[in-house]
Amino acid sequence: MNADDLASRILKGETRAAARLMRLVDDGSPLARPILAELSTHTGGAYILGVTGNPGSGKSTLVNRLIGALRARGKTVGCVAIDPTSPFSGGAILGDRVRMQQHAMDPGVFIRSVATRGNLGGISRSTPAMVQVLDAMGFDWIIVETVGVGQDEVDIVRLADTSVVVLVPGLGDDVQADKAGLMEIADIFALNKKDVAGHARLQREIRSMLALHRQVTTEEDEWYPQIQGTQASDGTGVEALMETILEHRSWLEASAPEETRRRERARHLIGLIARTELHARLQHVAADDLIKELADAFISGRTDAYAAADQVLNALLSSKH
Amino acid sequence: MNADDLASRILKGETRAAARLMRLVDDGSPLARPILAELSTHTGGAYILGVTGNPGSGKSTLVNRLIGALRARGKTVGCVAIDPTSPFSGGAILGDRVRMQQHAMDPGVFIRSVATRGNLGGISRSTPAMVQVLDAMGFDWIIVETVGVGQDEVDIVRLADTSVVVLVPGLGDDVQADKAGLMEIADIFALNKKDVAGHARLQREIRSMLALHRQVTTEEDEWYPQIQGTQASDGTGVEALMETILEHRSWLEASAPEETRRRERARHLIGLIARTELHARLQHVAADDLIKELADAFISGRTDAYAAADQVLNALLSSKH
Repeated sequence: MNADDLASRILKGETRAAARLMRLVDDGSPLARPILAELSTHTGGAYILGVTGNPGSGKSTLVNRLIGALRARGKTVGCVAIDPTSPFSGGAILGDRVRMQQHAMDPGVFIRSVATRGNLGGISRSTPAMVQVLDAMGFDWIIVETVGVGQDEVDIVRLADTSVVVLVPGLGDDVQADKAGLMEIADIFALNKKDVAGHARLQREIRSMLALHRQVTTEEDEWYPQIQGTQASDGTGVEALMETILEHRSWLEASAPEETRRRERARHLIGLIARTELHARLQHVAADDLIKELADAFISGRTDAYAAADQVLNALLSSKH
Repeated sequence: MNADDLASRILKGETRAAARLMRLVDDGSPLARPILAELSTHTGGAYILGVTGNPGSGKSTLVNRLIGALRARGKTVGCVAIDPTSPFSGGAILGDRVRMQQHAMDPGVFIRSVATRGNLGGISRSTPAMVQVLDAMGFDWIIVETVGVGQDEVDIVRLADTSVVVLVPGLGDDVQADKAGLMEIADIFALNKKDVAGHARLQREIRSMLALHRQVTTEEDEWYPQIQGTQASDGTGVEALMETILEHRSWLEASAPEETRRRERARHLIGLIARTELHARLQHVAADDLIKELADAFISGRTDAYAAADQVLNALLSSKH
């Protein structure tokens, strides 16, 4: 199967071809790049839904329910779960297999997890690549599932047309600060685990933070973030959540021309790819003994940490990819 | 106050000078760099304790208790809280001021939060800089407080000599996968919120994951991660946690020569600085209209997303810093 074959088979929606390409990406194969470049010119058709929540928020269960709700509407769904869980080992993903089984018989659903980082940190190439691949495959919807709102996840969330943030009761006071960041990415809050004590309190907290935030920043014609209580485990509130997502989509499509939204997304995408490329190169450069040498020079007082870091960058900038 | 003054005043431990330098770093001032470089040659004296936990885990309260426990032992403590909470606004940190007050009268304690990222994502320059500054100021201990274990946080955690991971009961099943990642960074688990239902179950889970993990990977002479129940709100278990941290320190100092540990830490530090520099440069390059232009070229089909990202990188690589 040559590269052209792979691209055209992916454009036809063949999951095996997509899985094959993603293995090439994960392995850092130079064969992946021209295929991804080709596929990128066939993207923009999918509606991207971001679902963000801490571990333990029930986010994965909720995503599975949303996949069901979209399938019930006749939509095909590609799902990419960004998995930051095993930064050191490279991340074997048990949960993924379990989740796949639920939709294994359904050709309208394709779920894949990607590890988010290599040894030197940062987001991996696989993440924007996977979103591109699902888009090029022709899925109507892409769900991007991320953990937390720290750091690199936000760049992924920015690719989304609609962002759902999943919260659960029982968080301490130090989550308050966190919510300020959430305000800026959430189009919809899903307050999950309705059965847990403190659900009403959480709802009040989010409401008042939204009200405060609105006073400070919201313009007349902006979307006002919606709140939806859910119980992912038994499906309560999932239909209402789906309807709210569709409402946001309608609002979005009415408020900004298609062109503007595509341009905005393209900017985020290009920035994201540039960053992941940089990380990949840095990792490549740093794989040799350079950092070791520099660390020795630093601790023996022959250089400072910043001059040493500069030497790493110089090696990177002069390296062939 | 010139640059030399600032460096020497920071080396004397003057917090005002340190705050001044950090403002220069935050502002991206070119004046910061030579001072940081100079300070980096005066580091390595502090013992670095990493404390990682999700929002709501009570981690900040626990850190405040640990600061108290170290002060009771006559140690000075610098604390840097990595704050990923407001990626879009740049992060004003209310909680920080509240926390500062607790130790405001104590010259042996200095606490500062740093925002983790700029607009283009990734970790900010401020993070490794702040750790360096606290080290150069001569604090006996540095506590680095991070949220979660996703992504860039791990690079910070790697700077730590001892890593405490704070967990709380009541997390769902999808935290299981997460724990695999935690196994690889935690020297000690603090199971906080002892009063909450499910505490015993959480303890059992961690114990069995540790047992499983040990079978697979642990060598005879490795540190076996310890578990300590705590109730940060009233201080229960904090003394025992502090003792466990000191045990790990003793084990570390007995098991690897000082030289080896300094070398290891230097490698992480140099890699981390190189990465943050790259981000800063990328942000600088991308601040102009280049990405806009490229996004337009992409959506009109004149280029693909990967060729566009390459052009961003070329601009970066040929740019003067």
